[in-house]
Amino acid sequence: MQKNSPMNFQLHSDLQRDGIIVGQFALSLVLLINDRTYPWFVLVPQRPNLRDLIDLSETDYATFSDESRRFSIAIMQSFAGEKLNVAALGNVTPQLHVHHVVRYATDGAWPAPIWGRHPLQPYSRAELQSTIARLTATPIAGFGLAPALE
Amino acid sequence: MQKNSPMNFQLHSDLQRDGIIVGQFALSLVLLINDRTYPWFVLVPQRPNLRDLIDLSETDYATFSDESRRFSIAIMQSFAGEKLNVAALGNVTPQLHVHHVVRYATDGAWPAPIWGRHPLQPYSRAELQSTIARLTATPIAGFGLAPALE
Repeated sequence: MQKNSPMNFQLHSDLQRDGIIVGQFALSLVLLINDRTYPWFVLVPQRPNLRDLIDLSETDYATFSDESRRFSIAIMQSFAGEKLNVAALGNVTPQLHVHHVVRYATDGAWPAPIWGRHPLQPYSRAELQSTIARLTATPIAGFGLAPALE
Repeated sequence: MQKNSPMNFQLHSDLQRDGIIVGQFALSLVLLINDRTYPWFVLVPQRPNLRDLIDLSETDYATFSDESRRFSIAIMQSFAGEKLNVAALGNVTPQLHVHHVVRYATDGAWPAPIWGRHPLQPYSRAELQSTIARLTATPIAGFGLAPALE
């Protein structure tokens, strides 16, 4: 297997620790960050050795942009969001991942950015189930729910 | 003139205060934030009444994504960046604008996100000139420098 083959993609341990895999698009794995403070999702293009959005090929970049748009529209509707924060930061975790965070004027960090505000506050099992149910309330073209959650 | 005509775009006063217009693409106005701490640019799609990326039409969204990509590649090269932070936040300033910040492991906020870290530290005239010169060192397809800076 070639070193840069797509098959060599492995989710970074930071993202494995903080996120729950809820599904995927053709290119992007979709994680729910285990923090009940906000509906906080991360899209991770499943390609090895990427750090910045511009490390994607032009074709993958266009695919990713479209997946991000479709996902954004769906979560803003499903979670009745007031504002969406979309950010590719990755200064700490060196694997390309793009935050999609539904924000409310009543949330704990508003209007500040959410990063580094406070420790993650894990979902209870019931909260997690209701969050997944809410996510899937709006059809998202090209998105497949993780089999374990169906 | 129609209320939603593109001609009705006006740059928000927060962005006028903090940014220097350095040029534009077909869709996006390009600002340099007047903070010598980082090469910090903001792209503002010139359409009225937008707050989130998904408020762009599908066509404008694709155009914006491409402009963002071309600009990102150029500034990472021109400023010899180590990491790029790209973020649509806008919780405070209610006009769609997308940050493009060149980061270094030696910068004052690393590895934290830059927002809300410290007050803007304005460029001197000479620093501003050298920053503009550096920006234009790499050709950027579709980007036109502001006439006042040519």
